[in-house]
Amino acid sequence: DFALKPTVPANPACSTDPGRPCRHPLTNEAENQRLLAHELTVKGRFDGIVPVLKRIAGQQHEADFVERAQAIARADLGFELPAGILGDAWIANLDMRALYGECVMRTVRLMAEEARTANPQQNVDEVVAFFLDSGYHAVDISPCSDGRLKGLVRYVLRLPDGAVRSRKAYAGAMFDVDANVKRWIETELMRYREGRPVAADAGTRYLKVVVYHWSSSDPTHEGCAAHGSNVTDAAEAGLARLREFRQAIENSFCCGASVDTLLIGVDTDTDAIKVHVPDADGEMSLYRAVYNLELYRATVNDDASSARLKVYQAIQAASAVTGWGAGKGEPHEGMRRLIATLLINNLSQIEYVCGNWGGRYPDIGHNERFISVGDGFEEFQVRNLAYFAHLHTVEEGASDLDVGIRIFSKLNVLHGLPVPVAIHFRYDSRVPGCRERTMERCRRVRAAIEIRYAELSRSGLLVCGMTVQDKRPGSPLEAVEANGASVLRSER
Amino acid sequence: DFALKPTVPANPACSTDPGRPCRHPLTNEAENQRLLAHELTVKGRFDGIVPVLKRIAGQQHEADFVERAQAIARADLGFELPAGILGDAWIANLDMRALYGECVMRTVRLMAEEARTANPQQNVDEVVAFFLDSGYHAVDISPCSDGRLKGLVRYVLRLPDGAVRSRKAYAGAMFDVDANVKRWIETELMRYREGRPVAADAGTRYLKVVVYHWSSSDPTHEGCAAHGSNVTDAAEAGLARLREFRQAIENSFCCGASVDTLLIGVDTDTDAIKVHVPDADGEMSLYRAVYNLELYRATVNDDASSARLKVYQAIQAASAVTGWGAGKGEPHEGMRRLIATLLINNLSQIEYVCGNWGGRYPDIGHNERFISVGDGFEEFQVRNLAYFAHLHTVEEGASDLDVGIRIFSKLNVLHGLPVPVAIHFRYDSRVPGCRERTMERCRRVRAAIEIRYAELSRSGLLVCGMTVQDKRPGSPLEAVEANGASVLRSER
Ligand SMILES: [Zn+2]
Ligand SMILES: [Zn+2]
Ligand SMILES: [Zn+2]
Ligand SMILES: [Zn+2]
Repeated sequence: DFALKPTVPANPACSTDPGRPCRHPLTNEAENQRLLAHELTVKGRFDGIVPVLKRIAGQQHEADFVERAQAIARADLGFELPAGILGDAWIANLDMRALYGECVMRTVRLMAEEARTANPQQNVDEVVAFFLDSGYHAVDISPCSDGRLKGLVRYVLRLPDGAVRSRKAYAGAMFDVDANVKRWIETELMRYREGRPVAADAGTRYLKVVVYHWSSSDPTHEGCAAHGSNVTDAAEAGLARLREFRQAIENSFCCGASVDTLLIGVDTDTDAIKVHVPDADGEMSLYRAVYNLELYRATVNDDASSARLKVYQAIQAASAVTGWGAGKGEPHEGMRRLIATLLINNLSQIEYVCGNWGGRYPDIGHNERFISVGDGFEEFQVRNLAYFAHLHTVEEGASDLDVGIRIFSKLNVLHGLPVPVAIHFRYDSRVPGCRERTMERCRRVRAAIEIRYAELSRSGLLVCGMTVQDKRPGSPLEAVEANGASVLRSER
Repeated sequence: DFALKPTVPANPACSTDPGRPCRHPLTNEAENQRLLAHELTVKGRFDGIVPVLKRIAGQQHEADFVERAQAIARADLGFELPAGILGDAWIANLDMRALYGECVMRTVRLMAEEARTANPQQNVDEVVAFFLDSGYHAVDISPCSDGRLKGLVRYVLRLPDGAVRSRKAYAGAMFDVDANVKRWIETELMRYREGRPVAADAGTRYLKVVVYHWSSSDPTHEGCAAHGSNVTDAAEAGLARLREFRQAIENSFCCGASVDTLLIGVDTDTDAIKVHVPDADGEMSLYRAVYNLELYRATVNDDASSARLKVYQAIQAASAVTGWGAGKGEPHEGMRRLIATLLINNLSQIEYVCGNWGGRYPDIGHNERFISVGDGFEEFQVRNLAYFAHLHTVEEGASDLDVGIRIFSKLNVLHGLPVPVAIHFRYDSRVPGCRERTMERCRRVRAAIEIRYAELSRSGLLVCGMTVQDKRPGSPLEAVEANGASVLRSER
């Protein structure tokens, strides 16, 4: 079911010369190989769960079943299975749903742990310095919750995790303006009190980026679910939300307070971005943008310096557009450099998709492995790995969560597999009691999820795992115990 | 049922000379009269609802019932009743529960409107200047949600509403440390960016006050429900929370960031306060305090200047206490002046209770008229008027709300009357879309309440009203429509 539609050309980026392997002068091939290895490892781990469980299920009536099962799990999954579930198999059949859910949760924790200990030191300082150089002391990105954007920062934009102030995802990229104003306030205070990352009088700005998405192969079905797969709606809504945020800052704070904003679209089939170029006033238009897939095609046969020049010319050309998309001049130099860098970074990702997947992902639709709820895992930045609903309470985040459950009803429930929900919140170890309150929040959100999706939960088709993690970079994941049985499971 | 227990002395403050009317040299008699008029008006309006509805009910089978009912309501309640409920009376009986709930909600709005337009300009600037003079650029008070503390700021402490940065109430005064850190950050940024209310280098501090309570007449039953009516538990928990907050600020922010903290107890029978005097390090003890009822008794026969001297001496004596309550020296001069002012202010309130209620309220227990949910009404600062649960979502605030519902099960449901819940949130008109999102929050919270207390709601024993209000001082209340029928009521 991953077959491409026959009408879709196979390799949109380099279709000008289909025989030759793509090799753009500005791409980072070594990084592409590292990222591929990472993606294959992470997805391989998750995709290995079902085959392993099938093998184990086949042996459930052997005398030494528990030992056999644990030996297989240790060897092929990297962890042991819950003894309780295995031990109960002789009574009824093996509870495959519970086992599957447990395996997904343990794989999440295992992968996070490996990422934490094995990740090479990323060039965070370098990128932060580049942002500052471009006039930005903070870059805050809100993508859509859609799992196909889960690799946005690390893959699509090629930025180190640590360099981005925040990347909370919301269905349809409809970020919470009020919460964002609070985050802006925190960032500002840091500049004033502690001069971090630069002093308040350095003339730098806060940059808010919204990322919407569409599917070039199947635009009316595989686009953004929150906007009915209508890319114009998605982009317009993102633009409106950015304007609201900027206005909120300008209206609420005196002394010329403002923020810069940037709207970016991603074609989730090719990972090519479209950057909406702000004008001299910071205003954007749906009709004034640089589409990076075209830029890739136009520069793939150039040498590095003329390719780089064409990137800047493309930004210039966008600024000079007339008619619908006409704006008031070019953005400031820092913004131009930032856009150029994002475009160049993304050329590597276009080539990554070209070289590894023939220019278009085999899974153009949803293919997430779990739902990530809460603050999300920094350790996972892999496309289609997780549907990510950033929320603090189910009461406020219910609609984002509903979209995720709807996706997994098709992906999992239809095949008898439970929806794995990984609830994860970060805490601040410097604040007394914060860890305990955060664990309490995990349990409260879990209970609310089990009540909202009571029918799934009762039939074992919803499995929640809970973890917390200190906010300091590099902190380990800590599993949260459920405090007794789950709210509804006990009624089974 | 308001009769005092026979063992309780009638007038604890001035029992030394029961024949003479109380007249303390430091009290503000004119203000006492103004406050009494306000309390009687507000409570009278609410207490008038049931008699009026009884009269109206007696006429429901008259031919011109609707006109008669509206005439009575206009004359005695100040507003018209919902035509729908009256018009349906000929079919079944008059829906008294719905009518009662509606009357409470309209009275809330009417009273708020009157308070807004009629309130004389309070001495906010004067008090803010006094706080600054004492070294505080912000005073933030968290009392218990208990309705008997609803008059805390205006009556018990005699402070103008506008002078206090925040007074969000939580069951047991167990305020949200994380949310309070965010509020501190906002306050700090204002100082740094705008020099409001003073510049950041002025050397002033943020003062966090926690107010617990007890009942001197019936300490084991009418104390703080959230702490099992155990005053030591209540005070200790408040102290612990204050320490957590201070530590959170000190640990999370560098450059000597800190806050001052103050623990105050209120005897809800007499409104006399007990102030726990910090030592030179800002530390407090349950066993180092000034109890203002004793101070009242000790100074009621003095002249003004010797009474004032005794107030300062009482603070000094507390600081000098040895044994369990021993601390490390006296607090800084600003704190001493602040405590003295609060004690002197509270002398007026002790006399208010003495003069008007014989030294002890007739309703020493719960006697709230409605539950206030959300941000609370600034307009209402009257003892026992409302149980106030500050919350943003029912998911997080459920336990505070449960306490309120339990109180009203006895006050109202037992007598067949519904629990009136006034949901009220403030919005920031400078932030685009904030008003609409806040109205949406009202509806979301209402739906969550109706689901949590489904049985009450279904039988008409829970009536919710919703209002929003701009954050700017003096803004009107705006009623929020329910967007169709309530979630569960339609199932009836
Ligand atoms: Zn989307
Ligand atoms: Zn290619
Ligand atoms: Zn209480
Ligand atoms: Zn008296």
